[in-house]
Amino acid sequence: MQEILEGPPDIVAMGNSISITRMAGLPEIRPGDDLSSLIIQAIRKNCGKLEEGDVCVIAQKIVSKAEGRLVSLNTVEPSSKALEFAEAFDKDARLVEVVLSESKRIVRMERGIIISETWHGFVCANAGVDSSNADAGLVVLLPSDPDASARRVRDSLKNEFDTEVAVVISDTFGRPWREGLVNVAIGVAGLAPLIDYRGQPDSKGHTLRVTIIAVADELASAAELMMKKTDGVPAVIIRGFEYERREASNQEMIRRGELDLFR
Amino acid sequence: MQEILEGPPDIVAMGNSISITRMAGLPEIRPGDDLSSLIIQAIRKNCGKLEEGDVCVIAQKIVSKAEGRLVSLNTVEPSSKALEFAEAFDKDARLVEVVLSESKRIVRMERGIIISETWHGFVCANAGVDSSNADAGLVVLLPSDPDASARRVRDSLKNEFDTEVAVVISDTFGRPWREGLVNVAIGVAGLAPLIDYRGQPDSKGHTLRVTIIAVADELASAAELMMKKTDGVPAVIIRGFEYERREASNQEMIRRGELDLFR
Repeated sequence: MQEILEGPPDIVAMGNSISITRMAGLPEIRPGDDLSSLIIQAIRKNCGKLEEGDVCVIAQKIVSKAEGRLVSLNTVEPSSKALEFAEAFDKDARLVEVVLSESKRIVRMERGIIISETWHGFVCANAGVDSSNADAGLVVLLPSDPDASARRVRDSLKNEFDTEVAVVISDTFGRPWREGLVNVAIGVAGLAPLIDYRGQPDSKGHTLRVTIIAVADELASAAELMMKKTDGVPAVIIRGFEYERREASNQEMIRRGELDLFR
Repeated sequence: MQEILEGPPDIVAMGNSISITRMAGLPEIRPGDDLSSLIIQAIRKNCGKLEEGDVCVIAQKIVSKAEGRLVSLNTVEPSSKALEFAEAFDKDARLVEVVLSESKRIVRMERGIIISETWHGFVCANAGVDSSNADAGLVVLLPSDPDASARRVRDSLKNEFDTEVAVVISDTFGRPWREGLVNVAIGVAGLAPLIDYRGQPDSKGHTLRVTIIAVADELASAAELMMKKTDGVPAVIIRGFEYERREASNQEMIRRGELDLFR
């Protein structure tokens, strides 16, 4: 029977805990709202201030709303392709039309489900177009440049709290083969979305060969645990996580077509 | 300009923070080790005790090692199929043979990559067979019944700390379309792996239509943030997360073939 190793744990530039705190009390976000200012108020209220290295994870929905990325279905003229799919699967043809217009490429369009690649390069259901948590007749599109959205909030937070922080914009995506949705990152600022362990020794001294970890996605998933869909808490602060600080882009998270076995 | 909502935040059976704490100091795990006992010692050392509702996330690798799920490549006789693939892509034919024998179905086998469905139903690279963090010439297989592994540890923790807790066994999987790997759950005990929000009202009072969140996967991803591949800290405690407590199974997390657009 082995015993637990004695002595202090081997900590390399890393505390033993991270915390995930919900920024409760954000109001319903409307087009034109100063999202950064509202998030700063929520941070003041929920945790006083930001500390160096804090990661603010923000749900895409409120970013899109503040940026006015809303479409009224009454203004949409469905194409014949949209009408055909909508008819076959009892869908709203105007919503299908919005999904098609937000799509660079259709990956699957069958059984009433549209999986497509957005103009940013994300592969997800309905090109990220969503009607939950929106007023009747309105649908919410993804931000047109989620990295820029993240940078704007990060710049405001950095300025307000006078310290280096990172921002992740998250959205809720499905995956093949597994039930349920998880949050992933669609925009980043101040944080490398991937950690590349290739070439580093593992705990046995062997070289890890193919391990690149998608930390931005894991931060988004961790944040979702405190957002919960029905609670309407669309921002959290993750404190204590060590990461590579640099300007980065959501494009790093997208697998290029020639490397993808599931085009 | 909107103001932050006044008054106490609307908290429903949920604190405002969760914590993720690494269980440092676990020794290298060997076949036959009493994993539960070692984890209990690590908990005593790192956070004193467990509290009601704590979730212990354990990396698959140490579960497999304790259960002796190791194969010495010297004992493997490759099939002609394994030899052919290994030859074409400069692989170890014995490793390919192990991967094939752990696979119920091959999903993709090209460009040197094998994506297959394991006998449990997980779709992942190399059927979860891994040679990192293992002694030379040995490869590590997934636990044969990860739910049973989770239940064994959960029972020990519950008995030791006299309170209801949950256990998640995690592994590191890739995904189509996105770069990098994330941790997902391959076994659960005491925790429903999915939360079904269908039929519940969203923040606008509309019914959420298709939102099932894979909380076990999000817990696994959150835990990975504190495990880090090269650090060798294969267990964490997540405290403060509210979840549905019940006996559950990894089979709930697997999308059935007839519902999957990416067979």
